[in-house]
Amino acid sequence: MKIIVLGGDGFCGWPTALHLSRSGHDITIVDNFSHRQIDILLELSSLTPIQPLSTRIKVWEQLTGNKIGFSFLDLANDYDKLVQLLVEQKPDAIVHFAEQRSAPYSMKTPSTKRYTVNNNVNATHNLLCALVEADIDAHVVHLGTMGVYGYGWLGNAPIPEGYIKVKVETPEGEIDREILHPANPGSIYHMSKTIDQLIFAFYAKNDQIRVTDLHQGIVWGTQTPETELDERLINRFDYDGDYGTVLNRFLMQAAMSHPLTVHGSGGQTRAFIHIRDTVRCIELALLNPPQKGEKPTIFNQVTEVYKVIDLATLIAKKTGAEIMHYPNPRLEADANDLKVKNDQFKALGLKPTTLSQGLLSEVEEIARKYVDRVDKSKIPARSLWRSLRTNQGSGMPAVGRRKNAAGVKRVKHNNRKIMLKGKP
Amino acid sequence: MKIIVLGGDGFCGWPTALHLSRSGHDITIVDNFSHRQIDILLELSSLTPIQPLSTRIKVWEQLTGNKIGFSFLDLANDYDKLVQLLVEQKPDAIVHFAEQRSAPYSMKTPSTKRYTVNNNVNATHNLLCALVEADIDAHVVHLGTMGVYGYGWLGNAPIPEGYIKVKVETPEGEIDREILHPANPGSIYHMSKTIDQLIFAFYAKNDQIRVTDLHQGIVWGTQTPETELDERLINRFDYDGDYGTVLNRFLMQAAMSHPLTVHGSGGQTRAFIHIRDTVRCIELALLNPPQKGEKPTIFNQVTEVYKVIDLATLIAKKTGAEIMHYPNPRLEADANDLKVKNDQFKALGLKPTTLSQGLLSEVEEIARKYVDRVDKSKIPARSLWRSLRTNQGSGMPAVGRRKNAAGVKRVKHNNRKIMLKGKP
Repeated sequence: MKIIVLGGDGFCGWPTALHLSRSGHDITIVDNFSHRQIDILLELSSLTPIQPLSTRIKVWEQLTGNKIGFSFLDLANDYDKLVQLLVEQKPDAIVHFAEQRSAPYSMKTPSTKRYTVNNNVNATHNLLCALVEADIDAHVVHLGTMGVYGYGWLGNAPIPEGYIKVKVETPEGEIDREILHPANPGSIYHMSKTIDQLIFAFYAKNDQIRVTDLHQGIVWGTQTPETELDERLINRFDYDGDYGTVLNRFLMQAAMSHPLTVHGSGGQTRAFIHIRDTVRCIELALLNPPQKGEKPTIFNQVTEVYKVIDLATLIAKKTGAEIMHYPNPRLEADANDLKVKNDQFKALGLKPTTLSQGLLSEVEEIARKYVDRVDKSKIPARSLWRSLRTNQGSGMPAVGRRKNAAGVKRVKHNNRKIMLKGKP
Repeated sequence: MKIIVLGGDGFCGWPTALHLSRSGHDITIVDNFSHRQIDILLELSSLTPIQPLSTRIKVWEQLTGNKIGFSFLDLANDYDKLVQLLVEQKPDAIVHFAEQRSAPYSMKTPSTKRYTVNNNVNATHNLLCALVEADIDAHVVHLGTMGVYGYGWLGNAPIPEGYIKVKVETPEGEIDREILHPANPGSIYHMSKTIDQLIFAFYAKNDQIRVTDLHQGIVWGTQTPETELDERLINRFDYDGDYGTVLNRFLMQAAMSHPLTVHGSGGQTRAFIHIRDTVRCIELALLNPPQKGEKPTIFNQVTEVYKVIDLATLIAKKTGAEIMHYPNPRLEADANDLKVKNDQFKALGLKPTTLSQGLLSEVEEIARKYVDRVDKSKIPARSLWRSLRTNQGSGMPAVGRRKNAAGVKRVKHNNRKIMLKGKP
């Protein structure tokens, strides 16, 4: 297949591009290096020494003989260039990772909120609009998020794959309907992905665009068999408070002999998937497109669920790290249960990498190996979900937290200073 | 109340600003004159001789002594100016009309699709983001559309006001939930308003912004008691295929002794409201805000439902016009029933202006009075919902229609030419 990977320089995009290239597909990467640029602005860098994309592509060709194309293009802004690319390439499929993908970053400032909405919504809409204009019948495989569902909306029932059957009372009796699972986003980032769903549904109906939306859990792990072939192919590892997922931050902290920082009680249950399984799932989705005129296919791209505290305990046991609790900057339940259906990928033969198998090698081969590259000041999460106004009288600690040397947090709340001690 | 009217130079915005000013509120209009600019690009103009906004505001002050403020500001692009305005004005409420509001225009070209999404989504998101940044607890009253619901999703049951109760089967038994009515938009424009709903829901939950979303039907009528005070205060009347609603186009055709052009059988049932009732509904919504922390309040802002063919027949009877059927450029059912709940406005005391009362004065006082200003070439609807690709094999006529002198349409379909005769 001829496949364009939008955002192909990123954490999921790069290993996906390599995996698909190795499987024999003809790959073109599109990227505007937005994450590398955000890294510069936030004074961050990947723990792993990622190489410039041109080096990555050259090394890949030297090792495998496979060429990967590249087009520098800002999907949200370079619409005409996008149309031209589609007309020239006539892709069979497009994998769409080209969105700002950090929830904390999306809540950081008015500017990052607005960037996330503008970039993500226009990127998705431009892609679909361009496919119609260029008259290209390519299958769009999009990386969604489990966060579109929120947590606990169905009580303890497992989260279905995208759609849900409901009954509605009407004057003429009860009727059955299948609907998109109601949107319950917890951040501007997650909201942008619920917006994507509406855009996909419209273009699938009006223009018969074929779309698969993959609602992915939290990705962990760094390497895939392809990125391991040469250190110059290494994948990103983000450990900072904005782009580092909870697991990566724990791994980093463990490698540094820093206590694992758990937000709240750690009773939040989250869904996980290893990056190796991400790239396999994307290939499975590419091989199983919906028919023209069908509504978007939705898969839940997750393999395991864990409570954050259990994850911390697992890592603590394997590494000897301590655990410390901090106030949660997010507006979310302190504890929740979570069951997720992932029957479709299981039926397609996915054999997952589990956390209990893979964690230790992550600590040893990534976190400990590159620990000298770490900037410790970047580990705490700093973005706040709540505006000051929302907090007035809510009793919730809010803006202005800083940590002193003893690991004790000072939290400024409505002009009063509160000392919160990290609980063991 | 101190009220900012975003889009206050437009068809709904201008009479709303005047009505609220007359009721004693302190009004500031924000506008970027986007509709006047689109008029220039499409070579259109309002049938009625609308004056520049500065003239309108001056005349209003001369007649009533009431000052109306104005800020030229592009909501989707001038974010910093918006924040500054909010900080200076500290409004109690904001009426948000500042969106591209034509469904046919939103389907016209890739550029108009992209403009509609970019403008409408960023306008709404910027407003909410700015309210949080400026820490202003203003009630946002937004003009939505009945088109978010689509038609017939609930069968013959009346469309509820925004939310719908559903039952969901789970392994632990049936559970009851209240959800936003599922989105079923029929155009990019309508899709943008379903996106607005997700943005409102998020900011209401995360930042306790108070929002009322008014799902309006098709507005008819031109004048309100305030715009009638002086011809220089006259409201817009759009009769073109993009911005003219079905009723305005019929009125214009009747005034010109042109047959009334009905798309398809005319069995489409639509919801209507007079502009006089629009401005009253907005005032009622302003006087009845939701509480902080509540989900957005949704009203259905409609007063009557009519089948398009019955509307044409009503006008034909009153004016002696003929009726002619044309192929429908929209992707929609040829006929549907429609019942709409509007209990909330009725409970608040709205006494509607009905079509059977008001139509004739519209024909005489607006359409016939200004008939010499009409550009006949602008009356047919030209935007097409379907891409060529979607039509292949569907048997639906598509791109390239033109009318010859005899009122017979040539429709180019998959490179074959088909002659469709206008049915009487």
